[in-house]
Amino acid sequence: MEIHNPQATGTPLINGPRLSDRHREMARIGGTANGGVNRQALTPEDTQGRHRLLEWATARGYTAGIDPIGNLFIRRAGTRADLSPVMTGSHLDSQPTGGKYDGVYGVLAGLEVLETLDDHNVVTERPIELVVWMNEEGSRFGPVTMGSAVAAGAVPLERALAANDAKGVSVSEALARQIAELPPMERRPLGATGHAYIEAHIEQGPVLEQEARGIGVVSAIQGLHLYQVEVRGFEAHAGTTPSRHRKDALVAANALIAKLRAEVADPADVLRFTVGRFEVSPGSPHIVPGKVTFSIDLRHPDPEHLLCTGDRILELCSGEIEHCMVSANVVLRSTPVQFDARLVTAVRHAAEHRGLRYMSMVSGATHDAKYMADRTPSAMIFVPSEKGISHNELEHTDDEDLIAGAQILCDALLAAATMEL
Amino acid sequence: MEIHNPQATGTPLINGPRLSDRHREMARIGGTANGGVNRQALTPEDTQGRHRLLEWATARGYTAGIDPIGNLFIRRAGTRADLSPVMTGSHLDSQPTGGKYDGVYGVLAGLEVLETLDDHNVVTERPIELVVWMNEEGSRFGPVTMGSAVAAGAVPLERALAANDAKGVSVSEALARQIAELPPMERRPLGATGHAYIEAHIEQGPVLEQEARGIGVVSAIQGLHLYQVEVRGFEAHAGTTPSRHRKDALVAANALIAKLRAEVADPADVLRFTVGRFEVSPGSPHIVPGKVTFSIDLRHPDPEHLLCTGDRILELCSGEIEHCMVSANVVLRSTPVQFDARLVTAVRHAAEHRGLRYMSMVSGATHDAKYMADRTPSAMIFVPSEKGISHNELEHTDDEDLIAGAQILCDALLAAATMEL
Repeated sequence: MEIHNPQATGTPLINGPRLSDRHREMARIGGTANGGVNRQALTPEDTQGRHRLLEWATARGYTAGIDPIGNLFIRRAGTRADLSPVMTGSHLDSQPTGGKYDGVYGVLAGLEVLETLDDHNVVTERPIELVVWMNEEGSRFGPVTMGSAVAAGAVPLERALAANDAKGVSVSEALARQIAELPPMERRPLGATGHAYIEAHIEQGPVLEQEARGIGVVSAIQGLHLYQVEVRGFEAHAGTTPSRHRKDALVAANALIAKLRAEVADPADVLRFTVGRFEVSPGSPHIVPGKVTFSIDLRHPDPEHLLCTGDRILELCSGEIEHCMVSANVVLRSTPVQFDARLVTAVRHAAEHRGLRYMSMVSGATHDAKYMADRTPSAMIFVPSEKGISHNELEHTDDEDLIAGAQILCDALLAAATMEL
Repeated sequence: MEIHNPQATGTPLINGPRLSDRHREMARIGGTANGGVNRQALTPEDTQGRHRLLEWATARGYTAGIDPIGNLFIRRAGTRADLSPVMTGSHLDSQPTGGKYDGVYGVLAGLEVLETLDDHNVVTERPIELVVWMNEEGSRFGPVTMGSAVAAGAVPLERALAANDAKGVSVSEALARQIAELPPMERRPLGATGHAYIEAHIEQGPVLEQEARGIGVVSAIQGLHLYQVEVRGFEAHAGTTPSRHRKDALVAANALIAKLRAEVADPADVLRFTVGRFEVSPGSPHIVPGKVTFSIDLRHPDPEHLLCTGDRILELCSGEIEHCMVSANVVLRSTPVQFDARLVTAVRHAAEHRGLRYMSMVSGATHDAKYMADRTPSAMIFVPSEKGISHNELEHTDDEDLIAGAQILCDALLAAATMEL
């Protein structure tokens, strides 16, 4: 993908090879034998990653700060300290068998923007600030997007600090240890906000690749409902029990799922309906299943549509089906987040001006931007994920796509810096 | 259920209260808090049960013997030692949370027949022999029906003796210990055969109860095929992956099972098709399933129909379904066993003569009679299982049904004793 550089854009070209080098270097920190990364939140690897990032930042004279939940801020000063910063960022922590790009990309692309501005002697009035959110993945400590959720007040600080990993180590202890090992830096209060926030991230899905687009202009993060369904039949001997006497929970669950799928079928293919967990009891080949429990992950960008579909699912998951009793309960209802239309437009314009093939899309996964959007005008930029593979050591994005996305981030952040929001 | 006693039958009435008492006494050996029994093969409880049985037998002057795999024989002599015995029996071992009747019933009903003959001074030319098969349940040591399978040569003795329980104790060790604790008795060679073999057993299914019949005249043990099916899709993020890009192994497995069920649908409700094990990988609510494996338990009394249906299932479980790849393999193909028509008729006549409501049926479960049928003309008698519940501490059969079944066993064994077979 060739990046056009018309006079009209007025923004500098980023340094692609440097961005690629930084990815390679960061991928070695916690790098796994299978080409992935294991750099879970607040582990020595995570500390090492942040350390390296701070070295790059310090070499440029940027200032650093950290808030009580461990969100890390790197600021390139503007000419006016009284103005709120234009922000970008993502996370450095990974899944235990994670890939080289999930999260890291948004951090390194943000750093690349700051350095590009330096390289081209670009002066901004507003500060440009890079944030590294703490524990986005939630694999070592729950919940996911911990740092951004605490910053937004969605999760109380005390509860997050008290969360333990599988070995009984708390966030509080692990964070204190990390801070002690990082260079001294400013202590920031919780709740950082800015003039604008734009996060670059890999798509973690197959759409951009399939549609042959290099840039995803992300307009929203879809809402997520999670339901738990239970189907109760009656255990019976597989050899001695005729069909007419069976209350087979698996037969009923399958019929129910087929019915639900038909009910929620979406020709536009926007709604996501997934049964990912499906457990059969007692699970013996020779016993007619007495119980099945399964999960429904339901997502849609439109809050009303999502709620309406969720309610319809609850309605269908009740009463009797194939001689079995069905019940369901709500595990989670997270509403969709709409990004700032002006920033979304800025991202699209940047892609247009650079002559990149882009498409508008909704984020299927959740991101730290979800919590920033509550209090700072926000948007996101996606780059393709090969075969849509993510949360996997095989995760891959071509260098040229990473570079193109970082360029759009640079252009959009500079545009945001002078926008009235 | 009232038992008629017309002159025509010419056989004595059994002692119902004694049979009921014996059931109560045996149920205390390994009895569980929930009213069930835990008397697994070659445990101290199993030894205690056999010990009690031998006491009852010895008190009557019956002789006892044991073969190399621990099958126990109790013989009431006839007038002609040169004639092969008429045999009956079942097993005393139970599932870990088993019931009071599965197996025990056939043993105690057999003993009751022997004692009834004594009480009424009935003299037979042929010996009447009660056999207690070792380890029918297969819960402590595999495989199931171990004793009868070894006696039939279907499982090598050495392999059976070498089988270990979960704690590493072998059949060989546990059997030696049991034999040391039982009174001394004759060592019999493997491969006992007889003139005829009739086994009484609880149905372990709901049919007799639903059809309001007291006696099941069992004409066959249906065949059993076990298949393992694998459906391979591709793991994907539930939030980011549109339907059109999914290879959802659960969706494919459900479609496949629906197709298979439609294909094998049997209006006569004779064929049994059960998916009892169904495992989804990775089993996370937020990941589109990449793999499903499931079992198919398929049973039918007609060998050709079973084979034909099994082959059709293998045919349908191959190739591509809903963008996923399907494959299947045969785990087990056990052919149906047809019982001896003359003995089956003898059982039916006994039920008719006693004025009992009976029905012809095929055994859905497997039994020791399966292996006897290979080399001795055999048949079975079923009595109702309340709600079809079995392999469960709630297993129940009314005393009057147990008594009626034992009476039919007595009548049929006496008939067999004088039949040309």
